[in-house]
Amino acid sequence: MQKLWGGRFEQKSAALLDSFNASLDFDKELYAQDIQGSKIHARMLAKQGILTDAEASAIIAGLEAIAEQIQNGAFVFDIAHEDIHMAIESALIERIGDVGKKLHTARSRNDQVALDFRLYVLQKNLAIRELLFALLDSLVSLAKVHTTTLMPGMTHLQHAQPVNLGFHLMAYAFMFWRDIVRFGDDYARNNYCPLGSAALAGSPYPIDRDFTAQNLGFAAPTANAMDSVSDRDFALDMHYSLSMLAMHISRLSEELILWSSSEFGFVRFSDAYATGSSIMPQKKNPDVAELLRGKTGRVYGNFVALLVVMKGLPLAYNKDTQEDKEGLFDSVRTMELSLRILKELLETSTFCTENMRKACAKGHLCATDLADFLVRTGIAFRDAHHITGKVVAFAESNHLDISELNAQQLCALDSRIPENAIAALCLETSMNARNCFGGTATSRVIEQVALLENQLASAKEQWQKESACRK
Amino acid sequence: MQKLWGGRFEQKSAALLDSFNASLDFDKELYAQDIQGSKIHARMLAKQGILTDAEASAIIAGLEAIAEQIQNGAFVFDIAHEDIHMAIESALIERIGDVGKKLHTARSRNDQVALDFRLYVLQKNLAIRELLFALLDSLVSLAKVHTTTLMPGMTHLQHAQPVNLGFHLMAYAFMFWRDIVRFGDDYARNNYCPLGSAALAGSPYPIDRDFTAQNLGFAAPTANAMDSVSDRDFALDMHYSLSMLAMHISRLSEELILWSSSEFGFVRFSDAYATGSSIMPQKKNPDVAELLRGKTGRVYGNFVALLVVMKGLPLAYNKDTQEDKEGLFDSVRTMELSLRILKELLETSTFCTENMRKACAKGHLCATDLADFLVRTGIAFRDAHHITGKVVAFAESNHLDISELNAQQLCALDSRIPENAIAALCLETSMNARNCFGGTATSRVIEQVALLENQLASAKEQWQKESACRK
Amino acid sequence: MQKLWGGRFEQKSAALLDSFNASLDFDKELYAQDIQGSKIHARMLAKQGILTDAEASAIIAGLEAIAEQIQNGAFVFDIAHEDIHMAIESALIERIGDVGKKLHTARSRNDQVALDFRLYVLQKNLAIRELLFALLDSLVSLAKVHTTTLMPGMTHLQHAQPVNLGFHLMAYAFMFWRDIVRFGDDYARNNYCPLGSAALAGSPYPIDRDFTAQNLGFAAPTANAMDSVSDRDFALDMHYSLSMLAMHISRLSEELILWSSSEFGFVRFSDAYATGSSIMPQKKNPDVAELLRGKTGRVYGNFVALLVVMKGLPLAYNKDTQEDKEGLFDSVRTMELSLRILKELLETSTFCTENMRKACAKGHLCATDLADFLVRTGIAFRDAHHITGKVVAFAESNHLDISELNAQQLCALDSRIPENAIAALCLETSMNARNCFGGTATSRVIEQVALLENQLASAKEQWQKESACRK
Amino acid sequence: MQKLWGGRFEQKSAALLDSFNASLDFDKELYAQDIQGSKIHARMLAKQGILTDAEASAIIAGLEAIAEQIQNGAFVFDIAHEDIHMAIESALIERIGDVGKKLHTARSRNDQVALDFRLYVLQKNLAIRELLFALLDSLVSLAKVHTTTLMPGMTHLQHAQPVNLGFHLMAYAFMFWRDIVRFGDDYARNNYCPLGSAALAGSPYPIDRDFTAQNLGFAAPTANAMDSVSDRDFALDMHYSLSMLAMHISRLSEELILWSSSEFGFVRFSDAYATGSSIMPQKKNPDVAELLRGKTGRVYGNFVALLVVMKGLPLAYNKDTQEDKEGLFDSVRTMELSLRILKELLETSTFCTENMRKACAKGHLCATDLADFLVRTGIAFRDAHHITGKVVAFAESNHLDISELNAQQLCALDSRIPENAIAALCLETSMNARNCFGGTATSRVIEQVALLENQLASAKEQWQKESACRK
Repeated sequence: MQKLWGGRFEQKSAALLDSFNASLDFDKELYAQDIQGSKIHARMLAKQGILTDAEASAIIAGLEAIAEQIQNGAFVFDIAHEDIHMAIESALIERIGDVGKKLHTARSRNDQVALDFRLYVLQKNLAIRELLFALLDSLVSLAKVHTTTLMPGMTHLQHAQPVNLGFHLMAYAFMFWRDIVRFGDDYARNNYCPLGSAALAGSPYPIDRDFTAQNLGFAAPTANAMDSVSDRDFALDMHYSLSMLAMHISRLSEELILWSSSEFGFVRFSDAYATGSSIMPQKKNPDVAELLRGKTGRVYGNFVALLVVMKGLPLAYNKDTQEDKEGLFDSVRTMELSLRILKELLETSTFCTENMRKACAKGHLCATDLADFLVRTGIAFRDAHHITGKVVAFAESNHLDISELNAQQLCALDSRIPENAIAALCLETSMNARNCFGGTATSRVIEQVALLENQLASAKEQWQKESACRK
Repeated sequence: MQKLWGGRFEQKSAALLDSFNASLDFDKELYAQDIQGSKIHARMLAKQGILTDAEASAIIAGLEAIAEQIQNGAFVFDIAHEDIHMAIESALIERIGDVGKKLHTARSRNDQVALDFRLYVLQKNLAIRELLFALLDSLVSLAKVHTTTLMPGMTHLQHAQPVNLGFHLMAYAFMFWRDIVRFGDDYARNNYCPLGSAALAGSPYPIDRDFTAQNLGFAAPTANAMDSVSDRDFALDMHYSLSMLAMHISRLSEELILWSSSEFGFVRFSDAYATGSSIMPQKKNPDVAELLRGKTGRVYGNFVALLVVMKGLPLAYNKDTQEDKEGLFDSVRTMELSLRILKELLETSTFCTENMRKACAKGHLCATDLADFLVRTGIAFRDAHHITGKVVAFAESNHLDISELNAQQLCALDSRIPENAIAALCLETSMNARNCFGGTATSRVIEQVALLENQLASAKEQWQKESACRK
Repeated sequence: MQKLWGGRFEQKSAALLDSFNASLDFDKELYAQDIQGSKIHARMLAKQGILTDAEASAIIAGLEAIAEQIQNGAFVFDIAHEDIHMAIESALIERIGDVGKKLHTARSRNDQVALDFRLYVLQKNLAIRELLFALLDSLVSLAKVHTTTLMPGMTHLQHAQPVNLGFHLMAYAFMFWRDIVRFGDDYARNNYCPLGSAALAGSPYPIDRDFTAQNLGFAAPTANAMDSVSDRDFALDMHYSLSMLAMHISRLSEELILWSSSEFGFVRFSDAYATGSSIMPQKKNPDVAELLRGKTGRVYGNFVALLVVMKGLPLAYNKDTQEDKEGLFDSVRTMELSLRILKELLETSTFCTENMRKACAKGHLCATDLADFLVRTGIAFRDAHHITGKVVAFAESNHLDISELNAQQLCALDSRIPENAIAALCLETSMNARNCFGGTATSRVIEQVALLENQLASAKEQWQKESACRK
Repeated sequence: MQKLWGGRFEQKSAALLDSFNASLDFDKELYAQDIQGSKIHARMLAKQGILTDAEASAIIAGLEAIAEQIQNGAFVFDIAHEDIHMAIESALIERIGDVGKKLHTARSRNDQVALDFRLYVLQKNLAIRELLFALLDSLVSLAKVHTTTLMPGMTHLQHAQPVNLGFHLMAYAFMFWRDIVRFGDDYARNNYCPLGSAALAGSPYPIDRDFTAQNLGFAAPTANAMDSVSDRDFALDMHYSLSMLAMHISRLSEELILWSSSEFGFVRFSDAYATGSSIMPQKKNPDVAELLRGKTGRVYGNFVALLVVMKGLPLAYNKDTQEDKEGLFDSVRTMELSLRILKELLETSTFCTENMRKACAKGHLCATDLADFLVRTGIAFRDAHHITGKVVAFAESNHLDISELNAQQLCALDSRIPENAIAALCLETSMNARNCFGGTATSRVIEQVALLENQLASAKEQWQKESACRK
């Protein structure tokens, strides 16, 4: 097959080159964006008198027919066309004849690729945020149910202070909230249209880049053509935000894996979201949470790949940049599925609140409360800390939790401990005592939920507006 | 030395542990932030009646004396204090006695570290942006001088179309502009105060987190204590934005290295910013640009390190997180110095515009113009492309650039080429023909400069406001 | 479909789980290894009396029929089978009835997966080395042709000293040689058979692991079952060695890209291994070399992904490990193709030796020779270096290369320069003067070629032996 | 200060350049290697008649005096000397006069740096292996004590089958064993001497590279000078092997963290290797294990940094390569300390074998044994698996472990279960049943220990030989 760029070439390209060079196998994922971009480009060319209205109409009709063919699976992809852009253009020429050759006027594959990929990234940015909204709805609902469910709050995986499950879940909710804000920032920062940048220096045709930008849902055209054809910041921003999301999910997954162990017993997964062993008949494995944790490696890896590719590339377009897509497609698919399954996993799991409560009887959870109590009697915090340390050591050496000590034992350990200090060792009291803004007290968790719901409402509104522009 | 946390411990910690565990060696970089945070904390405790005014005053005076000591180099850092927080607190107690022990009321090292590190990151965010403003001032000034300086625009490192040096430099200016916006987004997204989160669950004292947040220059306190003590998103955001900046710099550096080679000869570095060889007396090496390019690896590596550390960490604080600082300190220092030296390098370099112009006589730079010319005579672009391809092949086989062909030779190659087509092969005409928005035409580059200067003015204003809050 | 592990489960697994959990889509790449392993396992079971000979024969025949079906494309892969191991086992049971259920005796999916993946890695290790041998044959042949072809040797991309192209190419040959040695080391270090490790603790059946190991071409069985089912060192070793290979290729590619630019003009690619532009008719782009350079990012990324996955995983098998395959499959495919195309690219390229020679007239390539000459007259090297530096400065300020100076000019610059010093400025003399072992003198390059050919001969012999064991 | 390379330069270098360019701050770590290399170089120059014996002696004496000065802390490092090589050479000239200038004859900083860094890497390779031997001695000793200590073997962090602690620890021992082999392979592959490669093309002096190589403990000189000055494979190999070691340590650390939690209670750290909390008096945190886990990120990050630096660098030396040292120095220090502290941590920890045994009563650990028992009665494994699955489901719904069922209950669940099946549910029996090679049966663990001790003995012998050459 004659290449569309083959004029100056005397020899045909080697088959090995074609298979190495071609991106059609993966960039066909961009067919819808390519056709959308081409349609608006054709309309702009007609508006500017570069094409006649009839030519533009023929092109648009041809493109729509091709889109339908692809959707129906009737389109034959031929690797000789190199990429989705050439494949569609060739099909157009075949279908509508020579007028199809005019579509590529005033653009280059460089700006065309840049446009298609950016459209994809922005659309997926919206899609990921939508899934995050859904996940947060589940998570916040769950948190609301558990604002009084006692569990041991941990640091260093050691029992630290009593908290409630709602508070613990809201910690993740706020991580995912930051993800939403980060994706939103990425969106606004990259919502500019590269079409019209042509090969690297802009087009000599009297094109209207504002028209194109606006009709494709962008805030404005990009400002420098050379930058525009080689810029992949928008893709890296997406990679980074997906990596952060994956990292947050990996943390929650780690906890779900721990919680579902015999040792913790804090959660039981539904049979529908667990798997067994081919050899050990008793096994019920937290595969979903493990895979969610493992996927982080993949998403990080795809991100690192593009960071490496972009390092040290001179201006403007270099073929290395073709390596920008597969990894991002993979990370997007991975995180879309991850967000969906995490939501299901949470909704179908049983939280074993009885076991959580029982676990609070270990680890001297109220030791800080005892120290704080002593402070309120006028002892400096550092001294109170030392006295309580001794109480803990005594309990440990007697194989007791400090909550099992009686007032007598307590007071005997240090003359500065008053009798009513024993009251500091109640779990509910301890939890509700932490009632500063952001604290674990039930009322404060309810406040956090309300705050986040408010923020989410605004973010959804913003998302609606952005989505409307992209339709 | 008795550890501040040593109450329940019977055995002293091993020397090996101390050296492994201690962070004082590097986190002393946070002393100013630690003292700033402690002073506001003390003021808040007094305002809330948790400390008396006299106690707070004594603490604040003590802290200020310690700050002065550290600035003067008179403070003795002892690794037995583990970290800067303990070192300062111990010094305070030693200096002002038991009242010093009350400073730690209603906070934990967990939220204290989170605060200090976040203050550092936000302050450095402002500092990096300031350096970016300065770099952009230089770069834009340079671009303004060169809006008519012809050079070969390249793709695939092959001559593509004539552009001007101003346009080429503005491509980098817009990359750095996106960096400024990205740092700005990071700032706003992370400008929340974790102090008051205590160990993980909030404080039982009647603290006023709004007061603390406001007086430390934050927009508001963070909303969930458990999230707050384990959140390092703010540090990762900084790592990412520094990595993007490093990547952009690496691209410019790659070009400067190429341009300073004998083969290109587009730039000559000042003796002050080049180095020689210990064995080859003629060498003048572009070490600065090479190091700038190489630093990208370091900045990426520090970033990957923290991504790896955070993966799969359960809530809340884990000691792994101590690994969050050194890498970021290093990346910040690296990029501060890089930005400074890049600005100097650009300002002291000589651009060899004569050589750039000469280079334009190679590579058939006006081939696209010929094709575009043919399109305007009514030929479809794809056909015009093929005809021009043949012209190029003819020139190549005669060891000529197409700009060296005469009208007769041109027309002989294809009957569809009119005689006046020769006019399309003028470099200035070609460059100025690309005058769509974002194009390389001189007028459009001037427009880009104005646009960016406007955007920079707003960004500087915003930066002023943010800086004022942090003073 | 009833899962093979579903005994204790009351609810069916969710469709979303199946699509998230299943690895069949990619691990079917391991079908041949799976069947190979199962056949030997069945033979061992029969030898040990755990199966009857008739049972083993039926199983082996069944497996062979399935292998044929898969090769023919007649096998229907159903995602409900989760992975290739379950898919084949289910097909076996369907085909030969209940006796098929006995194949899984004395093994688990954990050791089965570990075996299959390790077989794959070792086979690909051999395949990659075979491609490296072929590449080196080309590269060394090319080097042999060019042992007297002068070109500027560079450091810092600045002209440094005259070398020959053969010497330059041999530098890459020795990089690839180290790759061969590294792959060989990996092979020997990981050539141990995990089958028999069962789920994590070994099998209670009287199995003969030596028999299995030997018949599958391994040196021995692995020594600890728990380690064996969770060990992915062999895959990481492969990732690393592929990354090093990719890095070496990226360096050669960078040079090919530079060399094919107008500015250098050192190489011209065959039309068969270059591509054009959709908009610029004159372009002939070094896409192959750019993609080879870009692929490094991908190979690094896949490597980082698995490093991240493995970090902090407790013993023994965790589902995260399922993420070990796709990335490695991708990197192996990428590097197999890269090695093939790089060989073709080198063989079909034209080295423009005339241009290389011309380039030697720039950059004062013989400056070191002049300094060395002065040393031989009794001047200390450091002083000779300074004198030569002044000669270079004089030439530069007169827009000359030092090779263009005459004896008079030379001697006038410093009284310590004798008249015959001019002889030091001959390129061939300079090149051939560097005739220590490893130097660029023609005779030394010929020696390097012979040395490498010897080493390659031994390495190929070793490879033959290893390959023979795996047949 | 006049630069040693400053002959052709008219302007002095900028202070900013000096601070950016200089590596003295970190490469002074290489002073001993630099002096060692220089001494042998001087001896070789004398042997070859390039220096007189008197000159060589003066140089060697001068270098030894400088070495002593540095060791004593009496040497003044001045950043104006750029790097340790220049610093030492300048000091030498100052000390012994003009003859000092002759040391640099027949070498360049490029091969000098390559030599010094390679010496460092090889010496540290030996040092790390020595620490690994020590760690393995501890680990194997511990394993020997616990070959009958029952604990739940896990997959997916779920109880799987009973194993003994010795077996579990031996899994890590074999990981570290592979590390030793990997470091050994690295050593052999990189034990070649680059000195004599000079700037990039070899030296014109009649040097004897074999003499230098041999007297510095290398197997031979490197074969191609251009490769030798730009090769950093040896450093990357070290980074990789350190990363693998860190990864293995992170896995053991993860388990130690889990085991020291209240929920597991399998290990208790010595007070000497644990830390407390500034706010929670009861806390005893596994900081050491957490830091060990966290250090993995750092070591990975340093590794990625150099991979990124090396990508796409043209030949020969580029300044980017200066970024090769700090990261490796940091990783080496990190892993040396990690190995030391891990050994101490293991030796001072108390394994709570009672709790491990108790934990075995959960999770139906003998379910596989029941299935295997049924297989021995003639039932196909897949069916036995299903029957046992039902037994587990019954036990679960009655809140029992299957080990708590009686024979009657068991037989009632499926007619194919014989009465004596109850015997399959004994933990010791189950553990010792897995007595294939590599299994958890006590006798097999003893066998593994012996096997590893044998391998270690050979490896130590090899290490002795290599160390002896380097003295």
